[in-house]
Amino acid sequence: MSNPISLIFIIISIYFSLPLFTTNSRTIKTNKVLSSSDDSSITYLWPLPSHLTSGNQTLTVDPNLSISLSGNNNAIVTEAFERYKKKIIFKHTSSSGGGTRKLSYDVGKVNVVVNSDNDELQLGVDESYTLLVAKNNGLSIVGEVNIEANTIYGALRGLETFSQLCTFDYGTKTVQIYKAPWVIKDKPRFPFRGLLLDTSRHYYPIDIIKQIIESMSYAKLNVLHWHIIDEESFPLEVPAYPKLWKGAYTKWERYTVEDAADIVDFAKKRGINVMAEIDVPGHAESWGTGYPDLWPSSSCKEPLDVSKNFTFEVLSGILEDMREIFPFELFHLGGDEVNTDCWKSTAHVKQWLQEMNMTTKDAYQYFVLRAQEIAISKNWTPVNWEETFNAFGEKLNPKTVVHNWLGAGVCPKVVAQGLKCIYSNQGFWYLDHLDVPWDQVYDAEPLERITDASEQKLVLGGEVCMWSETADPSNVQQTIWPRAAAAAERLWTSKEAAPISNTSEAALTRLQYFRCLLTRRGVQASPVTNFYARSPPTGPGSCYDQ
Amino acid sequence: MSNPISLIFIIISIYFSLPLFTTNSRTIKTNKVLSSSDDSSITYLWPLPSHLTSGNQTLTVDPNLSISLSGNNNAIVTEAFERYKKKIIFKHTSSSGGGTRKLSYDVGKVNVVVNSDNDELQLGVDESYTLLVAKNNGLSIVGEVNIEANTIYGALRGLETFSQLCTFDYGTKTVQIYKAPWVIKDKPRFPFRGLLLDTSRHYYPIDIIKQIIESMSYAKLNVLHWHIIDEESFPLEVPAYPKLWKGAYTKWERYTVEDAADIVDFAKKRGINVMAEIDVPGHAESWGTGYPDLWPSSSCKEPLDVSKNFTFEVLSGILEDMREIFPFELFHLGGDEVNTDCWKSTAHVKQWLQEMNMTTKDAYQYFVLRAQEIAISKNWTPVNWEETFNAFGEKLNPKTVVHNWLGAGVCPKVVAQGLKCIYSNQGFWYLDHLDVPWDQVYDAEPLERITDASEQKLVLGGEVCMWSETADPSNVQQTIWPRAAAAAERLWTSKEAAPISNTSEAALTRLQYFRCLLTRRGVQASPVTNFYARSPPTGPGSCYDQ
Repeated sequence: MSNPISLIFIIISIYFSLPLFTTNSRTIKTNKVLSSSDDSSITYLWPLPSHLTSGNQTLTVDPNLSISLSGNNNAIVTEAFERYKKKIIFKHTSSSGGGTRKLSYDVGKVNVVVNSDNDELQLGVDESYTLLVAKNNGLSIVGEVNIEANTIYGALRGLETFSQLCTFDYGTKTVQIYKAPWVIKDKPRFPFRGLLLDTSRHYYPIDIIKQIIESMSYAKLNVLHWHIIDEESFPLEVPAYPKLWKGAYTKWERYTVEDAADIVDFAKKRGINVMAEIDVPGHAESWGTGYPDLWPSSSCKEPLDVSKNFTFEVLSGILEDMREIFPFELFHLGGDEVNTDCWKSTAHVKQWLQEMNMTTKDAYQYFVLRAQEIAISKNWTPVNWEETFNAFGEKLNPKTVVHNWLGAGVCPKVVAQGLKCIYSNQGFWYLDHLDVPWDQVYDAEPLERITDASEQKLVLGGEVCMWSETADPSNVQQTIWPRAAAAAERLWTSKEAAPISNTSEAALTRLQYFRCLLTRRGVQASPVTNFYARSPPTGPGSCYDQ
Repeated sequence: MSNPISLIFIIISIYFSLPLFTTNSRTIKTNKVLSSSDDSSITYLWPLPSHLTSGNQTLTVDPNLSISLSGNNNAIVTEAFERYKKKIIFKHTSSSGGGTRKLSYDVGKVNVVVNSDNDELQLGVDESYTLLVAKNNGLSIVGEVNIEANTIYGALRGLETFSQLCTFDYGTKTVQIYKAPWVIKDKPRFPFRGLLLDTSRHYYPIDIIKQIIESMSYAKLNVLHWHIIDEESFPLEVPAYPKLWKGAYTKWERYTVEDAADIVDFAKKRGINVMAEIDVPGHAESWGTGYPDLWPSSSCKEPLDVSKNFTFEVLSGILEDMREIFPFELFHLGGDEVNTDCWKSTAHVKQWLQEMNMTTKDAYQYFVLRAQEIAISKNWTPVNWEETFNAFGEKLNPKTVVHNWLGAGVCPKVVAQGLKCIYSNQGFWYLDHLDVPWDQVYDAEPLERITDASEQKLVLGGEVCMWSETADPSNVQQTIWPRAAAAAERLWTSKEAAPISNTSEAALTRLQYFRCLLTRRGVQASPVTNFYARSPPTGPGSCYDQ
């Protein structure tokens, strides 16, 4: 906190009586935002920042808005600023300096200060930021837009919030910021805020995946859990085992390693990590299209043949190649829904089990633990679906992150045992469950039944899951949005600022506004109030009512 | 035909035994394309060009593909080339020149010759083009990619076809053209190939409209029929009557004149005209929100008050302002579904009818004809829905284009009377009719029951209609695609090359391929074979099978 901008933050913070240091337990000043629905100058933010104050001034924003970047002069921030400026804030040509430009604007510059030079994107990266928006009072460094963050990823979050403060005013045809001055101090509640995308049940072309990543950044989600492969298809290139992607549906429904790296890079520029999943030993039938030896037999194809060393060689080769593509420390090894009948009914596997003196349940444990060892040897932190924990939790590697999905009550057990947990209770956060309305998604609580502070810290966050049995490029975005946003606020915003249950009414209005914001940005977000997700609007009407 | 490239076309045409001049009645060589489904080098085009020959060579395309533009050196063509190159053809980073670039490629340049300097986009603009793709044999100007067109819009169509010839090969990680050499001589069957978008029942943000326009260009549709206003909302700014857009749903669901001009410009760059519609006198209740005098009374709000001169002053003001935005010569005045009960039940209108000695039917005719006069005085060609023709066809201005929608048999009557016609039989080409499968859309015939050649010429073409009662930004693209593509081929491709009924099987495979092409380009196109449009895929599977 040694540069001049930080000093200004302190001065402004004192001026607006904003505490310099924030904790989750403070009373949150959100009323000014939430109660303004009758006001002509509505400003809705999603997810809601944990701390904010606003005023009553309206500021105009210069179409020639510039950025001034101090500290870590990272191209990612500059590129993000240009994206927000051109594609989002000044979308209307009439606001971007046509024939009728004003001579002066209240806001002409965004000052971004990034305190750290480290631009690595990892789990737990500091995403906090402070955003101040005030009229330039003539003193050159006080006023305008100031974003201070410890990392470039915090700065990205601040830019997103800033973009949501900017409204195109159709009367004056200028971009305006209502309710200034704004003082926002914000940080995520959880470090892991994910969306699972299943590219095996249906293939998603790169452009569609990028659309999804871009839209995730609007809701401050920060992990794309890429469920790359499943029994139906194996779309990914694995250089070490080049026949694996013969398991793709067609020769066109594939991802090269360069495609995958391109997706990781695109996501990083939006502050989003990509957690890859190679689900073993179940959900892997498609592997055998290229290497039939991975099947127990040609008539019994799943789970992967536990008895062959070749199986683990292939897995090791995949993880070795994945290590080149996915820098995120978490790697998902699946482990869910393993039906071991094939192992019992295939002679050579059955014989191997006898030789090893293993039951099929033992062999399941053996497979998962051996896969974990391989992953850990390649410097991954393994993530496994909860069945592994439920079956042999005490045997899992202590580094394991357990991924809940079957229902409530798992994370409490996981963290009691000292393991980390990701919350995806299918009753609320499985997006393919179309009968879960937005408010049930919103009210789901990753820390349910976990009261001990040190145990709470072991819950990394949560994830909404977009399984693709009935989702494909035609409807995936309308299935994801707006419900993923409900989970995103639960994961980002402190519980005090976004309480469960008693704010549904206020949250609904904001969520409808956010859904319309998504459509303005070209995202196919569905009506909020339909009981069944992704159903069409029931009749004509405003986006803001549906 | 005086420049050197044209001479080369002649030479190549002779070499490949391609007739230099094309008529619709010739036998079309499409078998090489359609029968290649077992071939590893499948190339499917949509809509199918009317004349093509292909060979058996596979060519590689240089990631540093360049354009050489002769004739009309228009920025629109260069911009389109860059768009196709970066966003479509070389989408995969591994194909755009990473570490493993080849030293030589078969195709390194696209030569575009545009014969006319006129870049005006109007009804009937020449969209024909010749596309030759052959290996560069060392002679500098023969070979590679040659597109010759009479206008820049023909060149755009040629670029689209060229982009469909380019396939990313996942084996070599290069862009390849199979079945070369290609000789394609192509032109549209009809000059008017439209898509209606209704922005009144639901508002579509600019980004969504641009997505739709971009996708239209992939199917060679060339008219966006913008049904801007209806009874539900009035989203458009009209400077002459600035209160009109008070009829918008909200202050955010609006289009400024600059937004509208931006959309027209975006469309023009893709060879697409925008035909605006101001539907009068019915479907206009939203006008009265800003100007209640336009309502017969505050309790009876539609149709517009026929008795007041103010009504026609406002209409004239709108058309005057629209003239600045929409250069297309056709302007749609609606005229459909006029229920005149309000006129009978409102005292002052009833009195006016008596003074004018008019029935309500007379008054409907009076309104439509007066609106036509206003449009014609502003140099528009009026388009009206078929009710106007059905009610008083002989009174319509001879310039009128009649827009069929109620069913079959209207265009034959319209053209028999010497008027022009647009075909949109709701039984097949209303996209909100979700129970019409793709093959019924495909088999609809705008020239049904019209045999006389001079009368056939009066059918300008047809249009698929995307009414928005249950469509909004979340699902509009999946409702439009892929069925709009079926109509697009009917309207583009000669009937000989795309026969009705007997090619369904072959067309289905191509359409599934085109649907997947749309998804690769980021368009939310639905599965082809679902009976109900826009329904989700029924289960996991390849895009190419669904």
